[in-house]
Amino acid sequence: VLNNNPTEKVAVALGRHRKTGEDAVVILNRHGFEEDAIADELNLSGIKEIFHNSRFSRHQGTSPCKLTIEVICPAMGKDILKYSPQEWYVLRETPAIYQAITKPMVDAIPEADIQWVYNILDGKKEQDQVHLKTEEFLCLVDYKWQDKSDPKGLHLLSLVRERKTLRSIRDLEGGKHLKMLKTMKASILLEINKRYHIPASQVLCYFHYYPTFWHAHVHFTHISGPSFGSTHAVGKAILLDDVIDNLTMDPKYYQKASITLRLSAVKHSKALEEAVKLNALSLHA
Amino acid sequence: VLNNNPTEKVAVALGRHRKTGEDAVVILNRHGFEEDAIADELNLSGIKEIFHNSRFSRHQGTSPCKLTIEVICPAMGKDILKYSPQEWYVLRETPAIYQAITKPMVDAIPEADIQWVYNILDGKKEQDQVHLKTEEFLCLVDYKWQDKSDPKGLHLLSLVRERKTLRSIRDLEGGKHLKMLKTMKASILLEINKRYHIPASQVLCYFHYYPTFWHAHVHFTHISGPSFGSTHAVGKAILLDDVIDNLTMDPKYYQKASITLRLSAVKHSKALEEAVKLNALSLHA
Repeated sequence: VLNNNPTEKVAVALGRHRKTGEDAVVILNRHGFEEDAIADELNLSGIKEIFHNSRFSRHQGTSPCKLTIEVICPAMGKDILKYSPQEWYVLRETPAIYQAITKPMVDAIPEADIQWVYNILDGKKEQDQVHLKTEEFLCLVDYKWQDKSDPKGLHLLSLVRERKTLRSIRDLEGGKHLKMLKTMKASILLEINKRYHIPASQVLCYFHYYPTFWHAHVHFTHISGPSFGSTHAVGKAILLDDVIDNLTMDPKYYQKASITLRLSAVKHSKALEEAVKLNALSLHA
Repeated sequence: VLNNNPTEKVAVALGRHRKTGEDAVVILNRHGFEEDAIADELNLSGIKEIFHNSRFSRHQGTSPCKLTIEVICPAMGKDILKYSPQEWYVLRETPAIYQAITKPMVDAIPEADIQWVYNILDGKKEQDQVHLKTEEFLCLVDYKWQDKSDPKGLHLLSLVRERKTLRSIRDLEGGKHLKMLKTMKASILLEINKRYHIPASQVLCYFHYYPTFWHAHVHFTHISGPSFGSTHAVGKAILLDDVIDNLTMDPKYYQKASITLRLSAVKHSKALEEAVKLNALSLHA
């Protein structure tokens, strides 16, 4: 077996020709679902429930064509939205747009929304996942990395200790944070090297902007890891090395720069609406 | 049907509970291949050859578990490498590393390797795919966008007309190229809007570094499109808007900046070897 991709259900084997004995690359590919036949698939006999918790259940088809079926019932609007195709938009956030749209939105986030971060910083939760603690930041395993036997799943998070004033990359300033960012990069790469035997040359270190939660943090993931959707994409990821170089060039760089954002029509509808009002983008051709 | 992903073989349907009539989100997921059972899969009866050309053939399983099997026989070393998992490395290319490793490599590329680009620029090939021509650049449909009925597949390429001296983003200079880049962005976004009814707010414009071919060009793709591997990822894609802002700030920006690269152990083995010699990275923990 040369390769086996469980996400795409493709396997590649190295075989040998039955008569000539020549090497052969053999690519096995499961078929996707035909739109018209989806209802029929659900009439499979021998479906077995293997998990059930509240609205969520999981079933396994025992017919020759193995199938897992997940059911959310009763489904709420947000469940339906979550599984519908997302519409994305690109917004070039100038400093003026940041002040008009993003900052008021971030300032209005209730503190309770990042209480879970404070619980980690205060030593109340997830302490078994913490790898490093300094006066300025704390590094722990992201909950997405479940299977530690797979180094390509590497995902650590570094949370800064400074609270409230350091919500995102926009709040970074050379004079205040440059030294911390350099220390963070060096010490976490060393820790990854020691603990997981992954060389620094295979680790990608980056911020997200917009971040998923508004308390400044840096991601450390494997360069060959599964990319969780747009997690490594431009318009979302900003390399820690670029941040360090930009702050070195100009300590106020992130107060002056324009930054490209990927915004979801569902998750960021308010920001998109405001941007349309400011003539910063048009949703239509 | 809410969603049907042919790549991941996952379909999501909106159903209704048989008794209560409540909405239900139903997620159907085909199973991948079990490593141990891959040889057995090949013993399926009823495999039919549907395509054959030289070393390449494609077969379809007609058993209840539909399967496509591709065979390359006799397989050569490069075929086996192509389908083996790739090892990737992250290299921070400083201007000194560019001069020592990248530039000599690019200078040594035989002209014949980009003859196909000159054929397009000279009006000899693919002219039916050209959408725009100016004195400075030419815009055409990338061959990857086959199905024009799917706007999310949008992929245009803009090739600059300047030859030999403008091989990559490293050769861009504010004084010489800033005006062209701004004109390129505005006119191609307008053309995409008119021709395909896709708003500028859903188009991502970027260079690649390293590019696949060393003649300066810009990609225009749909923000929600299938991401062709790492095509949108940091360490590969560099946004046209960032390039314009950086050249505005400093006309010599790309002669001075450090740029992060994703290098493949297979495709870029020479560059990686040189970087190790220069102590610019270590392949091992």
